[in-house]
Amino acid sequence: MTSTTNQGRVTATPAFDLSGYLKQQQAQVESALEQAIAVTYPEKIYEAMRYSLMAGGKRLRPILCLATCELVGGTSDMAMPTACALEMIHTMSLIHDDLPAMDNDDYRRGKLTNHKVYGEDIAILAGDGLLAYAFEFIAVQTRQVPPAQVLQVIAKLGRAVGAAGLVGGQVVDLDSEGNPDVTLETLNFIHRHKTGALLEASVVCGAILASATETDLQRLSRYAQNIGLAFQIIDDVLDITATQEELGKTAGKDLQAQKATYPSFWGIEESQRQASQLVLEAKAEIADFGEKAQPLMAIAEYITARKH
Amino acid sequence: MTSTTNQGRVTATPAFDLSGYLKQQQAQVESALEQAIAVTYPEKIYEAMRYSLMAGGKRLRPILCLATCELVGGTSDMAMPTACALEMIHTMSLIHDDLPAMDNDDYRRGKLTNHKVYGEDIAILAGDGLLAYAFEFIAVQTRQVPPAQVLQVIAKLGRAVGAAGLVGGQVVDLDSEGNPDVTLETLNFIHRHKTGALLEASVVCGAILASATETDLQRLSRYAQNIGLAFQIIDDVLDITATQEELGKTAGKDLQAQKATYPSFWGIEESQRQASQLVLEAKAEIADFGEKAQPLMAIAEYITARKH
Repeated sequence: MTSTTNQGRVTATPAFDLSGYLKQQQAQVESALEQAIAVTYPEKIYEAMRYSLMAGGKRLRPILCLATCELVGGTSDMAMPTACALEMIHTMSLIHDDLPAMDNDDYRRGKLTNHKVYGEDIAILAGDGLLAYAFEFIAVQTRQVPPAQVLQVIAKLGRAVGAAGLVGGQVVDLDSEGNPDVTLETLNFIHRHKTGALLEASVVCGAILASATETDLQRLSRYAQNIGLAFQIIDDVLDITATQEELGKTAGKDLQAQKATYPSFWGIEESQRQASQLVLEAKAEIADFGEKAQPLMAIAEYITARKH
Repeated sequence: MTSTTNQGRVTATPAFDLSGYLKQQQAQVESALEQAIAVTYPEKIYEAMRYSLMAGGKRLRPILCLATCELVGGTSDMAMPTACALEMIHTMSLIHDDLPAMDNDDYRRGKLTNHKVYGEDIAILAGDGLLAYAFEFIAVQTRQVPPAQVLQVIAKLGRAVGAAGLVGGQVVDLDSEGNPDVTLETLNFIHRHKTGALLEASVVCGAILASATETDLQRLSRYAQNIGLAFQIIDDVLDITATQEELGKTAGKDLQAQKATYPSFWGIEESQRQASQLVLEAKAEIADFGEKAQPLMAIAEYITARKH
C-alpha cells in the first residue's frame, strides 16, 4: 500500500534533478573536506591523510547524512561535521583494506593506493589518524545540536566502524575468500556489516542531529539498510553484466576471485528483482515524509537504475 | 617556593602506600576492561582485541585518569569508561606499532604480538576496532557527567591519538630511525607526541569529567607533560644503566638501534638531574591540592625512583 502511495508521489514530482542535486551536495562536501585537514609538521602524515580523503569518490555517505538531516528538519550546517567524519572513516577503511596484508591493491579510482605512495607504515598511521580525527572533528565542530545528540552520533559511528560493524564485516569477508561453501546468510552478514553499517549510520546520524523521533529513526534505519543491500546486489550484478556488455575486457573481478556473490545464489534476474524489491521497500519507509523525501527517494531509485 | 611546600607535604604524609594504591586501582581497571568487550560472532576479532587489551601492563593511563578525576572531586565511576578507553587506545597503538611494516616486533611483555598470533590483517583490524570502540565506549557508558564535558573528553582523546598527537609522534620517530643527526628538539617532539600526548590526555580527561576549572586543567596538564617527559628520560637512562648492572645481558636496545636518546645528548647524570627537576616541577603544579594529590605526587616520585 505504502509503496503505491510512494510511487505515486515519485511520479508526481518528475522534476527532481538528482544529478544536479548530487553535484551540488558533492561540491559542498568537497569544500568542507578540503578545509578539514590543514597540513602542518610532520607534513607527510597530513599529506597522506589528505591524499586519500581528497581522491574523489561519490561522497555518498556524507550526502545521505546531509539529506536525512534536512529531511527531518535540520540544516546542512548541523550535519556537515558528521558528514565529513563519515568520509574520513570510509577513507580509513579503504586505506587499510588496500594494504598488502588485506586486499593488496595497488590502485584505487585510477590512483596509486596510499601505501604505494607513502609506504605501509604511513598508510596504517594515516588510517588511524583519520579515524581518530573523525571523532574529534564531530565533537569539536558540531554546532546548534544538543551535546547529548552529538554523543549519540559518536556512539552510533563508533559501533558502525568497529567489530560490530565494518571491521566485523571485513573479518568475515577475509575469512570467506576462496571458500566455496559461503552461505547466503554469511554473504548477507558481510554486506550488512562491511558496507551496510556505515551507510545506515550515515542516514541515522543525520536524523539524530535533527532530533528525529524514535519512529522516524527506525524508518530511516530500515530505508538505509534496504538501499545498502540493494546497492551491493547491483554491484555484484554489474560485475558480471558490465563485463559481458563490454567485450574485450577481462571477466568480472568477483568471478576471477571465486567470490560468493548474490548472482551466484540467485542468478542475475532474480538478483535484480530482489534489489528492486528492496528499493521499493526503502521508498515505502520514507513515503510519509512527502516532498521533503525527494532526495532520498531519488537516491534509492538511482541504485537499481545505475549502469556502473 | 611551591616545590618546597610540596616537598614538605609529601614528607608530612609518608604513610601513603603507592604500591598498594596501584594494585588496588589496577584490579579495578582489569575488572572493568574484562567486562568491556564480550566475545561474539565473528569471534576471532573480539578475541584478538581482548588478547592484547588483557595482556597486562601497568594500566598507568587509566590509573592517572581515575586519580585525577578523584583529585578534582569526581568519582571513580565517572571516569572508568574513559579510563578503559585510554587503555584501548594505548593497546591499539601497541598492536599497530608492532606490525612488520612498523617496528616489526614478535614479542611484547613476554607474549607473542597480536599479528604473530592472529595474522597481520586481523591485527590491523583489531587496532581499528579498539580505536573505534574507545570512542563508542565513552559516549555510551559515561554516567553522571554533563554531555558537553563528555564531548570535550572525546575531542581531547581524538587529538591525543591522531596526527596532532601519538600518530604524529610515531611518524617522526619512524623518520628519525638510523638518522645520526636527530636534534634534541626532534627527540622532544617525538616523546611529547608519541607517549606524552596520551599521558597528558589521561590526566586532563579525568579532570574534565570532574568539572575542573580552567586553571586546574592547565596545572594538571603541565603536571602530566612533566611526568611524561621525565618518564621517557628515565626509560632512556635505564636502557643503559640496567644493562650495565645486569652483566651478561646484551647491550641496551637503544644503543644497538643507534637511537637518539636523552643520555646521548646529556649523559646519564645530567639526564637524571633533568628528570628529577621535571618531577619537582610536576609536583609543584599540584601542591595546592593538598592531601588529595597524594596519588599523583607519589606517581611522579615513582618515575625517577623506579629501577626498571
